[in-house]
Amino acid sequence: MTRFDGRTPDQLRPVAFERGFQRAAEGSCLVTFGNTRVLCSASFTSSVPRWKKGSGEGWVTAEYSMLPRATNTRNDRESVRGRIGGRTHEISRLIGRSLRAIIDVKALGENTIVVDCDVLDADGGTRTAAITGAYLALADAVAWGKAQGAIKADAAALSGSVSAVSVGIIDGVPMLDLPYEEDVRAETDMNVVMTGTGHFVEVQGTAERAAFSKAELDALLELAATGTAELALLQAIALDL
Amino acid sequence: MTRFDGRTPDQLRPVAFERGFQRAAEGSCLVTFGNTRVLCSASFTSSVPRWKKGSGEGWVTAEYSMLPRATNTRNDRESVRGRIGGRTHEISRLIGRSLRAIIDVKALGENTIVVDCDVLDADGGTRTAAITGAYLALADAVAWGKAQGAIKADAAALSGSVSAVSVGIIDGVPMLDLPYEEDVRAETDMNVVMTGTGHFVEVQGTAERAAFSKAELDALLELAATGTAELALLQAIALDL
Amino acid sequence: MTRFDGRTPDQLRPVAFERGFQRAAEGSCLVTFGNTRVLCSASFTSSVPRWKKGSGEGWVTAEYSMLPRATNTRNDRESVRGRIGGRTHEISRLIGRSLRAIIDVKALGENTIVVDCDVLDADGGTRTAAITGAYLALADAVAWGKAQGAIKADAAALSGSVSAVSVGIIDGVPMLDLPYEEDVRAETDMNVVMTGTGHFVEVQGTAERAAFSKAELDALLELAATGTAELALLQAIALDL
Amino acid sequence: MTRFDGRTPDQLRPVAFERGFQRAAEGSCLVTFGNTRVLCSASFTSSVPRWKKGSGEGWVTAEYSMLPRATNTRNDRESVRGRIGGRTHEISRLIGRSLRAIIDVKALGENTIVVDCDVLDADGGTRTAAITGAYLALADAVAWGKAQGAIKADAAALSGSVSAVSVGIIDGVPMLDLPYEEDVRAETDMNVVMTGTGHFVEVQGTAERAAFSKAELDALLELAATGTAELALLQAIALDL
Amino acid sequence: MTRFDGRTPDQLRPVAFERGFQRAAEGSCLVTFGNTRVLCSASFTSSVPRWKKGSGEGWVTAEYSMLPRATNTRNDRESVRGRIGGRTHEISRLIGRSLRAIIDVKALGENTIVVDCDVLDADGGTRTAAITGAYLALADAVAWGKAQGAIKADAAALSGSVSAVSVGIIDGVPMLDLPYEEDVRAETDMNVVMTGTGHFVEVQGTAERAAFSKAELDALLELAATGTAELALLQAIALDL
Amino acid sequence: MTRFDGRTPDQLRPVAFERGFQRAAEGSCLVTFGNTRVLCSASFTSSVPRWKKGSGEGWVTAEYSMLPRATNTRNDRESVRGRIGGRTHEISRLIGRSLRAIIDVKALGENTIVVDCDVLDADGGTRTAAITGAYLALADAVAWGKAQGAIKADAAALSGSVSAVSVGIIDGVPMLDLPYEEDVRAETDMNVVMTGTGHFVEVQGTAERAAFSKAELDALLELAATGTAELALLQAIALDL
Repeated sequence: MTRFDGRTPDQLRPVAFERGFQRAAEGSCLVTFGNTRVLCSASFTSSVPRWKKGSGEGWVTAEYSMLPRATNTRNDRESVRGRIGGRTHEISRLIGRSLRAIIDVKALGENTIVVDCDVLDADGGTRTAAITGAYLALADAVAWGKAQGAIKADAAALSGSVSAVSVGIIDGVPMLDLPYEEDVRAETDMNVVMTGTGHFVEVQGTAERAAFSKAELDALLELAATGTAELALLQAIALDL
Repeated sequence: MTRFDGRTPDQLRPVAFERGFQRAAEGSCLVTFGNTRVLCSASFTSSVPRWKKGSGEGWVTAEYSMLPRATNTRNDRESVRGRIGGRTHEISRLIGRSLRAIIDVKALGENTIVVDCDVLDADGGTRTAAITGAYLALADAVAWGKAQGAIKADAAALSGSVSAVSVGIIDGVPMLDLPYEEDVRAETDMNVVMTGTGHFVEVQGTAERAAFSKAELDALLELAATGTAELALLQAIALDL
Repeated sequence: MTRFDGRTPDQLRPVAFERGFQRAAEGSCLVTFGNTRVLCSASFTSSVPRWKKGSGEGWVTAEYSMLPRATNTRNDRESVRGRIGGRTHEISRLIGRSLRAIIDVKALGENTIVVDCDVLDADGGTRTAAITGAYLALADAVAWGKAQGAIKADAAALSGSVSAVSVGIIDGVPMLDLPYEEDVRAETDMNVVMTGTGHFVEVQGTAERAAFSKAELDALLELAATGTAELALLQAIALDL
Repeated sequence: MTRFDGRTPDQLRPVAFERGFQRAAEGSCLVTFGNTRVLCSASFTSSVPRWKKGSGEGWVTAEYSMLPRATNTRNDRESVRGRIGGRTHEISRLIGRSLRAIIDVKALGENTIVVDCDVLDADGGTRTAAITGAYLALADAVAWGKAQGAIKADAAALSGSVSAVSVGIIDGVPMLDLPYEEDVRAETDMNVVMTGTGHFVEVQGTAERAAFSKAELDALLELAATGTAELALLQAIALDL
Repeated sequence: MTRFDGRTPDQLRPVAFERGFQRAAEGSCLVTFGNTRVLCSASFTSSVPRWKKGSGEGWVTAEYSMLPRATNTRNDRESVRGRIGGRTHEISRLIGRSLRAIIDVKALGENTIVVDCDVLDADGGTRTAAITGAYLALADAVAWGKAQGAIKADAAALSGSVSAVSVGIIDGVPMLDLPYEEDVRAETDMNVVMTGTGHFVEVQGTAERAAFSKAELDALLELAATGTAELALLQAIALDL
Repeated sequence: MTRFDGRTPDQLRPVAFERGFQRAAEGSCLVTFGNTRVLCSASFTSSVPRWKKGSGEGWVTAEYSMLPRATNTRNDRESVRGRIGGRTHEISRLIGRSLRAIIDVKALGENTIVVDCDVLDADGGTRTAAITGAYLALADAVAWGKAQGAIKADAAALSGSVSAVSVGIIDGVPMLDLPYEEDVRAETDMNVVMTGTGHFVEVQGTAERAAFSKAELDALLELAATGTAELALLQAIALDL
């Protein structure tokens, strides 16, 4: 069976990482999943939010946003509307939790890393591309912190890698890494965040048209495991590991 | 093995539904999960948002909020802060999606039902209690719409029931329906929304301290299936079905 | 002469107080005036706003809000609108002033009590019910502060009690404690806040349809004095005084 | 007995009205009560808010604001803060209600008059000066509407005049028209709005330090009646009636 | 050639300054350019924003606003809209920069002066009138600071004077100080801020209908130099220099 | 004389245009001025704002924003702060006016083009780079509109080209196209917008440290004319004209 863009159901879209895309950031990566492109940049600060002061622990957080014309029709800016929408909030929180799953805040020390994920082009899977690219930006910012002496050179601030992929059931077939055209047609839609060692960090499944069975859930999770394993490999290559 | 409140790992907290709690609403239910209490009220309007006009279809949406002193220490009102927080947005959207999973918008006709879920007391599981109670408020509002003739008497506007429960792993043991004290200690935390027929509507699992394995995920989903089956039964009893 | 709900002009609606309604609050009371129900909860903090620091004095303030479906048709949340309306501001300030009239801020010490009044059901007189219930929540929070040693055991933090009632002229007849149906028909509408010893704390009279005479004002004030005297008695009974 | 500024207890501060102060407004008046100066301007529009469309009735509303440096120390602008404070809301609503008490909305026809009251200098009594000046601006705007033919020439759009004054008890003595220095020392503070025929439109009394008796209330109301009678006379002179 | 109001192309409108207009401000000036009137008031505080603390330097900033009925039709208040518009921001920043051009922040010492410019009547040129009047308010506030000993008596806090005027090309003719009627017809519109010694502080030229040549620019700048020289003289007279 | 980056005073930084950078937009261009990069995208809609309906004319507007990590230290998002800052407003308005100077709104017909300028990397001159790139995005969107038949094929919707450059005086020397390091040291700073035929669209000069003379102004304008002439040529090459 072949998909509308020529892929097999268990195939990722072409993936690319361009590290150092944004000049000033301590870590930065332009991630590409097919037509979807997200600019991820990590900002390192040698301090922590007030509620973390004196804890010896650091903090990692994330903010997600879309440029107005990332989509087929222009969206008003949230700054112009004066408020951040629910979807933006939800994705920002998801990215932050995903990154914190592989950060050892003790080893990070009292430093904060904020990862901004700005979608330049949106063709489905912006949140999973963002998580996957944000990991590279984070890794570079951690390396920068070590080079600067802000993080101890031997601290295992990163406990591993993290990546994410979307999966969904379209016309009864489980498929990996959905572009917009498939996403809107999916009966069930799931975003899965996994570590490089194949453990789950986040599982977010939604019945878009019909409630789904355990068997369908299992098929989707298996597909996601395959996809994130491949992404973990591509991340390692991009980092020259 | 016994939990701090005397329950077994697969046991729900005491559950209660008080229908008609709020006088003016077309459907209303005060739902109790242990110490957690949420007031769910459904408002019926014979019109739809602009983007649904002329479609012949209805719409269901939800808004979640906490009273300032639902929690151990007082939280500032979001109205006073002038903006809605990310957590509130996320839960409101989850409740809305859960309810739409069992509504047939065609059968509903061009009517809108808004379900407000206001947490009076928060002791963990407020979003799952909210979904479970919101279903009763929604069912009563649909019945009201039929009685008024706004929905056709023979329309199957509700395709089934929906309920939700939290599950988590604490000290390595999967447990059902977590109160606040267990929630903060959980290594993995999952909210599962299921239909009365045992299909999944939403699965939201988060690794709070450690990424989790497929085996752990399966154990949690099984526990959730048990819990939501019991909740579906209690919902049916409350509706005199 | 009999009113539409069977009461005489100088009769209160059925009044009830349910102390301890909200589990976490230091003081809490669900107050009922006929169909109107307001949840009043007092939150005690051992600190004061910055402008009171070092003064040796405490502070009491209040916030009023309505649940979206307290009324016959649903009102949008002020948190969603992003701003608090004038009516809400006005009533919050009135409740705060009324409570401060019977608090001795010196005796309270450098502690703050915030009283939240959330209207569950609105059928006229929500602000007067709120003040009357808020007093009980405040009294319980003061007692809690004494039990905790945050307020000196012998400090007369409360100089007395306070309650409030609405009065109005309908078809030329002065009437006590107006439900919504009477409220909208009133030519003149007045909210009166009085101490348990029969002194005035606030008098807010408004000519809704026609300016009123001194004789009418006097008749309304007399009716209010009767009503608040009865409320003060019911408050004392509720507090087991 | 003489007050700090040389007045007797029942004496108004020097009052002045400068009609036509703001060039573009249909009605405009700079009102002076001692050191307090408020610019009141009425804007006439030949349409009504949506909820009044087709009713044959007009609408009158008001907005109150203070320039940043009307007071002894500078206040941040509400536009900069991004929200309107409770006090501003409360006074705007009071002015609007006071003006509507003497407007016949039927006779006004489907026209709207918005009265802006901007405080240039604040030395106590800004809301009472605002109401008193707003009446003149409103009267001029009504006359303008008649001259333009937007209001029928013989329509009694204004049923009379309205003015307001503050009264308070200082060191046990009831006093009329309090400047800032007396206002902060008042045990009881009352704002009274009356028609030119001596009827009450609004009575807003607040116990600032001590609850007050009926006798004290009566003394204050009598003083207010004297003050507003004099203001009504000055208004009539200003309008060349 | 004569303009619609009888002026020659290089003639200013009648200019007037009324110092001390707002009672409480340390410096205040009502400035009149024809029908345009702006109330400028300077507030002096013996402290600086956090980012200036310990620098030994002071700060001057400005805020511009229009009363709702300064214009021919009423504008909604920015406080009611909940946000400040781009035009207001732009003009506030321009006034602030203009004043800072003639302030020596070292000589000012760690003091802040905020200048509020509120437009009472708008007939074109409100920003240039505001800058011209703001200088007088600033000068008075500096003098006040010296009299109070907050600024050293011999400190040259003001390095000179500043004034501003608009110029534009209408029907091919360069004209000085445009009222609203000319402003809307101008092909090119320029606001020029100059010191009393004839140097440029700000040049803001905009092609409203047609891009303009260097020759036209030169003609406008020459006209502006004439106008600001005259304004500088009038400012000196108003300050009794 | 050589500048810190090796350029002569009258030399532009390396300039590049990448058309079609954002996939979905009708016109899009990534513009580079040295280290400064701005993504400009034009969105075409076949309708106009309400106040233009029925006029037969179109509309062009622009919005400017910076990504949080375009700068050396991270800036909070304006969407998170809930309000747009003055600088952002000012630059958005400047870009809009510059584009409208070379658009014939009659020839455009009742269509709207919104140009978004998002700064990816900021190293001085972001507003001038934005205007220069925005012209290319606009030109492509106009061409798209003609290809679609939304604009008449023979309509001269663009009357010419527009570009912008910054100039400033550093250590007494007029210099062209300032990077951040020079910008903060400039005594005088000017942004000049010119048409491809060498006419002025906007001249915005600011005395940052010292008021400037006519001779200095002339030197800067001459430098700007040279720079924009070169930019106009590069724009023409990029458009294959």
